Amino acid sequence: MRSHIWVIKMLEKLVNVVTIRNETVRQGLAEALATFLLMSFGLGSVAQVVLGKNSFGEYLSINLGFGFGVMLGVHAAGGISGAHMNASISFANCVVGNLLWRKLPAYVIGQFFGSFAASAVIFALYYEALQNYTGGNLTVTGPTATAGIFATYPAPYVSLWNGFLQEVIASSMLMIGVLAIHDMKNARALPGTNAFITGLLVVVIGMSMGMNTGYAINPSRDLPPRIFTALAGWGLEVFRAGNCWWWVPMVAPTLGCLVGMFIYNILIDFHNRSPSDPELSKQDPEAELTSPM
Amino acid sequence: MRSHIWVIKMLEKLVNVVTIRNETVRQGLAEALATFLLMSFGLGSVAQVVLGKNSFGEYLSINLGFGFGVMLGVHAAGGISGAHMNASISFANCVVGNLLWRKLPAYVIGQFFGSFAASAVIFALYYEALQNYTGGNLTVTGPTATAGIFATYPAPYVSLWNGFLQEVIASSMLMIGVLAIHDMKNARALPGTNAFITGLLVVVIGMSMGMNTGYAINPSRDLPPRIFTALAGWGLEVFRAGNCWWWVPMVAPTLGCLVGMFIYNILIDFHNRSPSDPELSKQDPEAELTSPM
Amino acid sequence: MRSHIWVIKMLEKLVNVVTIRNETVRQGLAEALATFLLMSFGLGSVAQVVLGKNSFGEYLSINLGFGFGVMLGVHAAGGISGAHMNASISFANCVVGNLLWRKLPAYVIGQFFGSFAASAVIFALYYEALQNYTGGNLTVTGPTATAGIFATYPAPYVSLWNGFLQEVIASSMLMIGVLAIHDMKNARALPGTNAFITGLLVVVIGMSMGMNTGYAINPSRDLPPRIFTALAGWGLEVFRAGNCWWWVPMVAPTLGCLVGMFIYNILIDFHNRSPSDPELSKQDPEAELTSPM
Amino acid sequence: MRSHIWVIKMLEKLVNVVTIRNETVRQGLAEALATFLLMSFGLGSVAQVVLGKNSFGEYLSINLGFGFGVMLGVHAAGGISGAHMNASISFANCVVGNLLWRKLPAYVIGQFFGSFAASAVIFALYYEALQNYTGGNLTVTGPTATAGIFATYPAPYVSLWNGFLQEVIASSMLMIGVLAIHDMKNARALPGTNAFITGLLVVVIGMSMGMNTGYAINPSRDLPPRIFTALAGWGLEVFRAGNCWWWVPMVAPTLGCLVGMFIYNILIDFHNRSPSDPELSKQDPEAELTSPM
Repeated sequence: MRSHIWVIKMLEKLVNVVTIRNETVRQGLAEALATFLLMSFGLGSVAQVVLGKNSFGEYLSINLGFGFGVMLGVHAAGGISGAHMNASISFANCVVGNLLWRKLPAYVIGQFFGSFAASAVIFALYYEALQNYTGGNLTVTGPTATAGIFATYPAPYVSLWNGFLQEVIASSMLMIGVLAIHDMKNARALPGTNAFITGLLVVVIGMSMGMNTGYAINPSRDLPPRIFTALAGWGLEVFRAGNCWWWVPMVAPTLGCLVGMFIYNILIDFHNRSPSDPELSKQDPEAELTSPM
Repeated sequence: MRSHIWVIKMLEKLVNVVTIRNETVRQGLAEALATFLLMSFGLGSVAQVVLGKNSFGEYLSINLGFGFGVMLGVHAAGGISGAHMNASISFANCVVGNLLWRKLPAYVIGQFFGSFAASAVIFALYYEALQNYTGGNLTVTGPTATAGIFATYPAPYVSLWNGFLQEVIASSMLMIGVLAIHDMKNARALPGTNAFITGLLVVVIGMSMGMNTGYAINPSRDLPPRIFTALAGWGLEVFRAGNCWWWVPMVAPTLGCLVGMFIYNILIDFHNRSPSDPELSKQDPEAELTSPM
Repeated sequence: MRSHIWVIKMLEKLVNVVTIRNETVRQGLAEALATFLLMSFGLGSVAQVVLGKNSFGEYLSINLGFGFGVMLGVHAAGGISGAHMNASISFANCVVGNLLWRKLPAYVIGQFFGSFAASAVIFALYYEALQNYTGGNLTVTGPTATAGIFATYPAPYVSLWNGFLQEVIASSMLMIGVLAIHDMKNARALPGTNAFITGLLVVVIGMSMGMNTGYAINPSRDLPPRIFTALAGWGLEVFRAGNCWWWVPMVAPTLGCLVGMFIYNILIDFHNRSPSDPELSKQDPEAELTSPM
Repeated sequence: MRSHIWVIKMLEKLVNVVTIRNETVRQGLAEALATFLLMSFGLGSVAQVVLGKNSFGEYLSINLGFGFGVMLGVHAAGGISGAHMNASISFANCVVGNLLWRKLPAYVIGQFFGSFAASAVIFALYYEALQNYTGGNLTVTGPTATAGIFATYPAPYVSLWNGFLQEVIASSMLMIGVLAIHDMKNARALPGTNAFITGLLVVVIGMSMGMNTGYAINPSRDLPPRIFTALAGWGLEVFRAGNCWWWVPMVAPTLGCLVGMFIYNILIDFHNRSPSDPELSKQDPEAELTSPM
């Protein structure tokens, strides 16, 4: 039935040679691909809106770009690493024992690598459009500012404390939503549709809590593109802008994810488990691998 | 396999201490969280559209914000309380015997608390944006009116009777839709996707019946934010505006949900049950807990 | 467990009295409710876009309003009548033997009644907005024309023949899509999600084939609202406008549905059945009742 | 139960006569219908945006038109041919042994035929709107250019190399997404919802990687409409425009799909199979027929 049996044979041999059997490395690679998808679609949609001067998309496109990017990332890595795509979510999973601490570096390195690669790809894709829009002058502020295509910056009227609060709250909403969507003891999304619903969660966060700070809600979404822009021509202004804003999308989402986990547990989950069955009161270790939490 | 067994042990002990075993309290907490999610995403999207001067969203964003907010609320509380998030729906469920009357206060208090908390959170998130937009002058009417971010107000051309009619009809459509989406004897939505479809129901109500009055269709969506704004600086004008509009979103949706229930039953459900089997002709008591009706 | 046993007992007795046991009447009622939902959400979204002067929706809202209206109609009647909501689709089902000819009048009367009722409801809901927009002068053409909120009219540059062709083709696309979404022998939509996917089919038809004629693609969507407007103040101009356009949305969709059925069968279905098993080559009679075809 | 038994009998006889039992021909016909659906909805939405001067849709409509078109194409042919609708994806499937090389011509001919037919249908549907918009002067460039309704052309600021890179990357994202959505060993979309999720993948590619070149990502989407426009009045300029752009949407997507397959396999799939079980390491031959890859 196959006219290319020899190709399959060769591919099988090749596959056996390059197959990575170390689970942690595989999970890091999966996080890299998932974060790459999320960031390519997300940053690409920002680029189209900014460089296309609202003729090739609007604010809604950015919301949908990041949301459907998350959806595709979950499909790409959900069965391998759980598709965190977010260092704060990986960290929170370590805190509650859903992810081994020794795996955290692989997750974060994978995510950062994927995010950085996506920044480079979007920069290459829109290189000529960037030149055309900016006249070759890559700036962080001003009428043709383009650094905001890659990393997030607060709106001019937002102080550091209000921006920090914003990122904490939006990230806690993200965590609450992710827990509710995947909670097997509650009204979770139908398995196989959770990627889509998680995407819509990210869409609605951007629609309702995105104006002040650009809703980073994720260190892996913000720091690698910022480093990329620093290297690619925007310079160190990307770290100084917004009153040295850069550290907020590192710290606030990490705090916010823990807050969200606490809220969901205190209002729903703690009371929703059989106290006589201690096995049920810890999470299923397998669940970590298959559910994008 | 776990390096943090002691954390889990400690958490288990803590969980046993704080676990609430009273079902009604748990359901009230679940309603609070679900309504908090609905209202945070809903009010947040209105805030972005108003304060962002249509650059960070449009009318569609408001529809989607409330719709996906409902979706996430259903995921968060659907398995505990049925995720009503709406005092009129809770009341209608009591009338037909799907919810015990003695549980109604816990449901409504939970919903109102969640809605009030969401108003406070959105006020805090957009505090500086509000100052920037209004110059510090929080008004209910006028060119920089912002009370409409929180509670609903009728359009200037709408009389009380037409607004009342509007809210009755839109609420009855909500009830008909919710019943159809969850009707096990008809063509209900696939379990696990009902949260999403219920969200789309709220989206389409906003798209087609939202212009006159801002489609409250829910006392729990309207009164707590109105009280919040009265306290937070907008003053008692929030109750006087629109010809003392505030009571309409209390009464009309409650009436509308009963009308909707009647219409669905008279056109579909009464004729769609086996009359010889009296067990089938009353609703499954368990269904109340698991289906977001 | 119930504090209102007596209410349930009373309701049960009442139910037994009013229960309609005639299947055809029940199906007519189901078609009426489903078409009412479709038309209320559809016409309501047009009203918001026109009367709200594009501040409360845009062309996309109209597409989504009709699409999600179809979705909710399928949930409301899919298990009773198949949720045709379209006289042309009912007719085509009769032609191929999926619906008994003697049931056709009940289907069409139900649809027309639901559609007419929805027109009246939307007229009532937006009565004051209509007065405000038109200054009380209800016209079919001109700068504040509002007849297009209810029935469809061709664009000024469209001739009768091109409009007729447009409606034939768009209706055949509708039929092909409906058949593909529900084809058990092909890659149909997951049961329980078919309502949503059918809604998206109507959305995309409006997005891609709606500009010329307003995509009636359905006599039940067009004639009853047209009659309503003739009676409600727009006068007989609603039948004369567009070169006596009114009959095209009756004839062209009926032809188009047959064309679409023919295309799908000739390209896909005829070759996709076991010729040795004659039972398989006719449609399952039960399928008529449960699938919205 | 049927009043038209004789119609069914006659139809059965007719069916037996015209039934095509050759699987390859049937697959070619299925590809034709699927590509026809994709292209009718896609090109139709571009036509509405261009000819309707942004009153009947916006850039988002184009993204949704192609996305939901793909969705419906998958439903129409997914169970017969796998619903490739894309010569580059068919080619890539041949390279890895999922599709027999001898079937490739039937797939590509079917796709090209469906795409050409859709161009003709959209031209007929919008014939008068085209005349009205252009004054009868069909041009490839200039203020009333309309060739872009059918085939893709690069933006003026885009060079051939950057456009080529764009198409390679966007096509590789398409391939990665399709593989992830259907990967049975990973977190694939729930069967029966894959058509919808694949549609959203195409939506998000258009939102984030569509501005430079119009995201052809598919020879079957681009060449047949280009040939149609050359014949229908736009002339050979359609091949000369954009620095002889026409060949890029043939070559770049083919390369991109192979790149995407390589990336997904190297990062995810090679390490995600049991090396001891050679059966698992080659794809299930049946999968080719049922999954739209």
